[in-house]
Amino acid sequence: MRAVEDQLRQIRRGSEELLIEAELLEKLKSGRPLRIKAGFDPTAPDLHLGHTVLINKLRHFQDLGHHVMFLIGDFTGMIGDPTGKNVTRPPLSREQILDNARTYEEQVFRILDPQKTEICFNSVWFEPFGAAGMIRLAALHTVARMLERDDFAKRYRNGQPIAIHELLYPLCQGYDSVAMNADVELGGTDQKFNLLVGRELQKHYGQAPQCILTMPLLEGLDGVNKMSKSLGNYVGINEAPAEMFGKLMSISDELMWRYFELLSFRSSEAIAALQQEVVGGRNPRDVKVLLAGEIVDRFHGATTAARALADFDARFRHGAIPDDIAEVSLQHGAEPLTISQVLKQAGLTASTSEAMRMIEQGGVRMDGNRVDDKHFVFPAAGTFVLQVGKRRHARIRVG
Amino acid sequence: MRAVEDQLRQIRRGSEELLIEAELLEKLKSGRPLRIKAGFDPTAPDLHLGHTVLINKLRHFQDLGHHVMFLIGDFTGMIGDPTGKNVTRPPLSREQILDNARTYEEQVFRILDPQKTEICFNSVWFEPFGAAGMIRLAALHTVARMLERDDFAKRYRNGQPIAIHELLYPLCQGYDSVAMNADVELGGTDQKFNLLVGRELQKHYGQAPQCILTMPLLEGLDGVNKMSKSLGNYVGINEAPAEMFGKLMSISDELMWRYFELLSFRSSEAIAALQQEVVGGRNPRDVKVLLAGEIVDRFHGATTAARALADFDARFRHGAIPDDIAEVSLQHGAEPLTISQVLKQAGLTASTSEAMRMIEQGGVRMDGNRVDDKHFVFPAAGTFVLQVGKRRHARIRVG
Repeated sequence: MRAVEDQLRQIRRGSEELLIEAELLEKLKSGRPLRIKAGFDPTAPDLHLGHTVLINKLRHFQDLGHHVMFLIGDFTGMIGDPTGKNVTRPPLSREQILDNARTYEEQVFRILDPQKTEICFNSVWFEPFGAAGMIRLAALHTVARMLERDDFAKRYRNGQPIAIHELLYPLCQGYDSVAMNADVELGGTDQKFNLLVGRELQKHYGQAPQCILTMPLLEGLDGVNKMSKSLGNYVGINEAPAEMFGKLMSISDELMWRYFELLSFRSSEAIAALQQEVVGGRNPRDVKVLLAGEIVDRFHGATTAARALADFDARFRHGAIPDDIAEVSLQHGAEPLTISQVLKQAGLTASTSEAMRMIEQGGVRMDGNRVDDKHFVFPAAGTFVLQVGKRRHARIRVG
Repeated sequence: MRAVEDQLRQIRRGSEELLIEAELLEKLKSGRPLRIKAGFDPTAPDLHLGHTVLINKLRHFQDLGHHVMFLIGDFTGMIGDPTGKNVTRPPLSREQILDNARTYEEQVFRILDPQKTEICFNSVWFEPFGAAGMIRLAALHTVARMLERDDFAKRYRNGQPIAIHELLYPLCQGYDSVAMNADVELGGTDQKFNLLVGRELQKHYGQAPQCILTMPLLEGLDGVNKMSKSLGNYVGINEAPAEMFGKLMSISDELMWRYFELLSFRSSEAIAALQQEVVGGRNPRDVKVLLAGEIVDRFHGATTAARALADFDARFRHGAIPDDIAEVSLQHGAEPLTISQVLKQAGLTASTSEAMRMIEQGGVRMDGNRVDDKHFVFPAAGTFVLQVGKRRHARIRVG
């Protein structure tokens, strides 16, 4: 085990908030493997790099010798939205949840060490809990304190309805920590209140309260909004290597350092050294290649990563994309943007008919991949490098 | 079955509020026996006449041909006070609850017809309900609407804690109505909010909502405070015939009419006729004897009631209690009031030592019963007729 102070530094890296540091220090000093909890919805996972910020942190804990408990909230998943108002949250069957759990495993075990990961399901303790157990649990918290939670407070003030079961969910999540005897719980910053409920309930049940580590939301490829599938500014961890590589090469130099901090497993020292090199004149794109290579390696293996790099080099670098290429911002109008319109509006072709012809001839690439579909419609938002022939390039920001 | 309008009049008698009359009329018109619900705590029952106001109303429904469901809330009884703060509400075992249920039956079957009474336990539906069922139930009501309940609103405003499980209890009580498919629920006026929750939940579950009939709280023997054991102004239904008779004879003439309305099974017409007779000059005490006799009859049988009346007559009437006897109000001081002090302070004896002597000689009666204990301490509150020898009487109000 590494020195406690070193561990703490590694744990804090990239995190938003740690509560309570002194308690975590004590736990680390005990020398025993800590029980690290993170909870996930049992919905069908299709993870992108934004989700991996938290999973990477779990991996850090594993590397430091701790025990990771990956909790799938199947109990509430099987309830769905009991008000029936949210059609996107139908109740899930046990089979669907087990399927989803397997899909999670496939994805997260590209980051986590399966030997040091326990997959937990909270139905194990909530099914025998009974209606009486739920009432006893509800007795441990007051309405007023629950309504202090930011979103509840706002809704209550604005007269927007809060159904009573919504007060029970934070208690359920908190009780998970009791049932799992968690030493540390990780979550997004929006989870802080619920993580604190876990601390309280643990105290009530005579356990040492868990420490809380919140992780920030990762910005998407646009560097502005949080990474999200619906915004189109994401890199899915199941994306093809060339696509993943190309997308990561499209980010700004500034965002690159943020991604290094939150997505790379390079040490903080190694990253600081790279920053020094760039300050000293090294082309940031060479460093970006290291980041993109590391992440493609993580999800597709080293051989594939090397090939993605070589392909990218062959298409872009040796094909001589200028360091500074034109940037064009476009928005979908009444009619969504098609590839030929974008090529014309970005000035890469003189007309949409030239654009069509170039696509037919195989002369148009998007993020390094040949575009074959003349009627290709751009996603709602995102950043893409378009190339026409060998010489014409533009970075397109949509949305 | 009696005409619907007649039924309605009988149902309304003495009640506080009926919601919704038009719906009840429709239900009555159907001609089927209605399902009448009333809920009771599973704590050890020691019923007094105050409790019987509601049970009498159930009896009225039985007499009209309806089906009475006497619900014992054993599910929450077995939980007790989950906060552990209320030591007077420990969790009850199934055995204790069954014992208490038997004690209820013994007492209420002196009023209700056992053949038309179903004893229900809500653990039957709540035990298989599960934690998930409780969450689904909690989804059917909002926090804001629950906090509209008078006592919650007040506590929330005053910053007094409301534990979250307290919001679940009205929902449980409401769900009882669903599980029992109740047509009408009876309760105290303080129960109105909870009874309305039952209506709502029934609608949600596709049932016709129950009608609600609230009954007033019965005033105690003092005619001022509600009848309660702790105030000492009560008549227990297990009290000895002579005691019961004597206590009822001690009430004011005004209170007597209230008791006729809420406790007597005489028809409203018969009671109106008695009132006319008193207006016409009949001694109210003769009418009070009818009330006392009816109630002693109910709990002890006709023979015993006749004997209680005869004894009472022998002791008081023929022993010539004056119609207007002195009334003395006393309060417990640092030392509680003993019988000898009261006798002296009421002027019935010249001194406490005379009082002692009279007691030893068997010359002191309280509510018609001989007092043998020289050190008898008065209850915290109540009204008692004291008699020394044949001629000296006083009505004592304590508290």
